[in-house]
Amino acid sequence: MQPDLLTSAQLAHTSHLFRTHSPLVHCITNDVVQTFTANVLLALGASPAMVIDAEETPQFAAIADALLINVGTLTQERAGAMRAAIESANANHKPWVLDPVAVGALTLRTEFCHQLLALRPAVIRGNASEIMALAGMSQGGRGVDTTDSASAALPAAQALARQISTLVVVTGEVDYVTDGHRTVAVEGGDPLMTRVVGTGCALSAVVTASCALPGDRLDNVAAACAMMKRAGQTATRKSEGPGSFVAAFLDALYQEVKA
Amino acid sequence: MQPDLLTSAQLAHTSHLFRTHSPLVHCITNDVVQTFTANVLLALGASPAMVIDAEETPQFAAIADALLINVGTLTQERAGAMRAAIESANANHKPWVLDPVAVGALTLRTEFCHQLLALRPAVIRGNASEIMALAGMSQGGRGVDTTDSASAALPAAQALARQISTLVVVTGEVDYVTDGHRTVAVEGGDPLMTRVVGTGCALSAVVTASCALPGDRLDNVAAACAMMKRAGQTATRKSEGPGSFVAAFLDALYQEVKA
Amino acid sequence: MQPDLLTSAQLAHTSHLFRTHSPLVHCITNDVVQTFTANVLLALGASPAMVIDAEETPQFAAIADALLINVGTLTQERAGAMRAAIESANANHKPWVLDPVAVGALTLRTEFCHQLLALRPAVIRGNASEIMALAGMSQGGRGVDTTDSASAALPAAQALARQISTLVVVTGEVDYVTDGHRTVAVEGGDPLMTRVVGTGCALSAVVTASCALPGDRLDNVAAACAMMKRAGQTATRKSEGPGSFVAAFLDALYQEVKA
Repeated sequence: MQPDLLTSAQLAHTSHLFRTHSPLVHCITNDVVQTFTANVLLALGASPAMVIDAEETPQFAAIADALLINVGTLTQERAGAMRAAIESANANHKPWVLDPVAVGALTLRTEFCHQLLALRPAVIRGNASEIMALAGMSQGGRGVDTTDSASAALPAAQALARQISTLVVVTGEVDYVTDGHRTVAVEGGDPLMTRVVGTGCALSAVVTASCALPGDRLDNVAAACAMMKRAGQTATRKSEGPGSFVAAFLDALYQEVKA
Repeated sequence: MQPDLLTSAQLAHTSHLFRTHSPLVHCITNDVVQTFTANVLLALGASPAMVIDAEETPQFAAIADALLINVGTLTQERAGAMRAAIESANANHKPWVLDPVAVGALTLRTEFCHQLLALRPAVIRGNASEIMALAGMSQGGRGVDTTDSASAALPAAQALARQISTLVVVTGEVDYVTDGHRTVAVEGGDPLMTRVVGTGCALSAVVTASCALPGDRLDNVAAACAMMKRAGQTATRKSEGPGSFVAAFLDALYQEVKA
Repeated sequence: MQPDLLTSAQLAHTSHLFRTHSPLVHCITNDVVQTFTANVLLALGASPAMVIDAEETPQFAAIADALLINVGTLTQERAGAMRAAIESANANHKPWVLDPVAVGALTLRTEFCHQLLALRPAVIRGNASEIMALAGMSQGGRGVDTTDSASAALPAAQALARQISTLVVVTGEVDYVTDGHRTVAVEGGDPLMTRVVGTGCALSAVVTASCALPGDRLDNVAAACAMMKRAGQTATRKSEGPGSFVAAFLDALYQEVKA
């Protein structure tokens, strides 16, 4: 089954929705990417908020438009705050997204992420190794890096999507967004993006924001991937390395939604 | 009562004091803005240090010149470390500043901030919604964003300042610094600053540093606001979006105190 | 005893090893420098991962090529996770590096770092005040800043290196790398580097990565210092202040290993 390609009309439409809806995104994410994640969302016109105490996360998940759960620097305490947030999001019919960073190799996060699948994420976004590990088809990658290609993980992504009736995004040189039946491929980006911490984690945050937009979720999520890949290409052209890339990338995202 | 405007002589004087005094600022702030806050203080010639364990915070608050308390990613554990730091700062006659991020909507931080008012902050710095919520005049904003204008919150700021004998800074398109009797208005800045995470939180850190300088505190705090607004304007002129803004902003602050 | 100078051949050789080995570095570091540390390692072709829960740190320390322990924002809970990681690294014959941020003035971290010396770090990297405090020869600096010069701390560094059979790196205007018998001096850098948070902490991460490379460890560590100093000089030339420095510095590191 050949994946669809995202149309430029859909991309323009979703960009427009970001600008007009300014979704409020509750991010419970890892310690390394907090600033970059917030700046990516702000550049796109969304509104990020990082609320993390188990007493506050359910309150805020009820207020926010969507919730991001990223287990990159999971702690047992943080896991409790995440679970409370997810339960509140579900009770309040707010979508939540799982970024299963480095799942597979480490027991705590692997068990936790498997438990979370029962709480029905709207989207799971990971690299090939993470998606394969979550689908029970491999042991995970090397640290936070994948050891597989996204296309190799596509069957696992499709199986996982069908199994728990969710969308799965497996990212790499090409990103694939699938509900297990329909699959959209998103090309673009640049290898320089892998030399900057948090591009994948920030994509998960943008995917989360896109879940709060009206219209077809699969198309909006694919458009979110495409916005990031296009900004990555623009930024690579304008930069001399991973340092200048960061500024150029945020500027490019800002132009995406301003245009 | 018409607010005063800050004189350029006062601004130049406070800039000079930053350069010559290099205040050591103990920051207990949120997870999202740590790097940016530290870099803003360093650009201005101040010395930041983030010490967070409840066993260490009282020791360090006694050594530092001033203490910042920012509740953006409050946890119950962090609240204890903050309280211990404040009590030590008070015992050692060091000023401390409260940034009541997102107070109003979330119970834990709202109760905590109200308790902290009894410990007499030297300055409270917030956006309109936060100041109104702290003064008991509204329910807070939308996440970390304000839903009110600074001028609308000025009466609340003045009432709060008089009530607990402190300075209140309410920031927005215009910043107001008030002791409840005298009010200074600070104009400038640019809307692009709201598309970069931590400009408000970093301002609170600069306000904290300014509390350690000799001279009139209200004037020094107003000058701190003006330095940030002026750097924001300079950076906006030199940048193409929120990414390049960050670098240009830190460069502009560095030039503020070098000049 | 006159210190040796690093040869340019050694510097080129170690740069080459970074590129070809891509060490996986487990960083348990402070909250302020996580992003910058990760981006510095990525720019150099290394692979950073921040895993922090006491249940996961021993698992990951066994997988990673080397472990960084930085106590900048130590908490009692984090201390337990660090100790578990170190014991696993030792059991799996992986080198670990200690960055004793602000040791001396604060009791919790001072006692903790002294206990860690018994667990035999491969390298200790600190500023002059930190190394002198760790060697029992002073009370530490002012917050995270040193109040001594690196050359003044060299005897303390050499004594400490001999005492626990490790390498000690004391950094400042000149960096010294010593095993207590042989000492290599590394010149370069620029004072602007002290106006950017995390340059020292990121150096410790690069030193950690260098411990995973084949060849003489003292030479590799000195080359790591030299790469950072050279990139600092390049970045200073290309920047207008500490903001543009950050981007230029990461770009320069990226060029170091690409060349």
